[in-house]
Amino acid sequence: MSLDPELAARLKRNADGLVCAVVVDHATSDVLMVAWMNDEALHRTLTTRRGTYFSRSRGTLWVKGETSGHVQHVREVRLDCDADTVLVRVDQTGPACHTGTRTCFDGDDRLLLADGPA
Amino acid sequence: MSLDPELAARLKRNADGLVCAVVVDHATSDVLMVAWMNDEALHRTLTTRRGTYFSRSRGTLWVKGETSGHVQHVREVRLDCDADTVLVRVDQTGPACHTGTRTCFDGDDRLLLADGPA
Repeated sequence: MSLDPELAARLKRNADGLVCAVVVDHATSDVLMVAWMNDEALHRTLTTRRGTYFSRSRGTLWVKGETSGHVQHVREVRLDCDADTVLVRVDQTGPACHTGTRTCFDGDDRLLLADGPA
Repeated sequence: MSLDPELAARLKRNADGLVCAVVVDHATSDVLMVAWMNDEALHRTLTTRRGTYFSRSRGTLWVKGETSGHVQHVREVRLDCDADTVLVRVDQTGPACHTGTRTCFDGDDRLLLADGPA
């Protein structure tokens, strides 16, 4: 099995052969995490509806929640205008962040600029 | 002017010295676009509250809307757990995408996987 050739031809991969994946909670629209996909990870995400990514540090595919149980059921996938980023809408089981927070952007120490006057 | 040294020390930049920026509509929480920032772009975004990015193709800073008028007023900026991605919440004037769509993910041709059974 491999990625649909028409889609493979559209993708604009980075120097490492990856596209950026922005993962959003389907219910709340909150951005949960950002990860990376190679062609195989995208293919598996589209065909299995399990959020599947490429680990840049380990150099291997990983299925989100494989060890933690915090799996993602994929509801929708969209490609951006540049074809170098996908937007993945998921039903997230448990916290999305490996630190235990609901999203990878939660926590006071992660706030760089607070809301000010409009 | 340069980026706060404490923040600069936290950032995990890629090989090109950049962090990923996911830009979200403050009102709707929709993901509008994904772009890149070097230290100076992040510094300017934090201090001016204008969405400012680094163009990988042109190798220069750009202020979103500088030519189109489709500016971004920055409401909040958060760093992720890995410190290699920022989440930027903005009030977006006009369409965020250079193709004229509201977000960079809109349009039937950008839908890779439609919603299925939960």
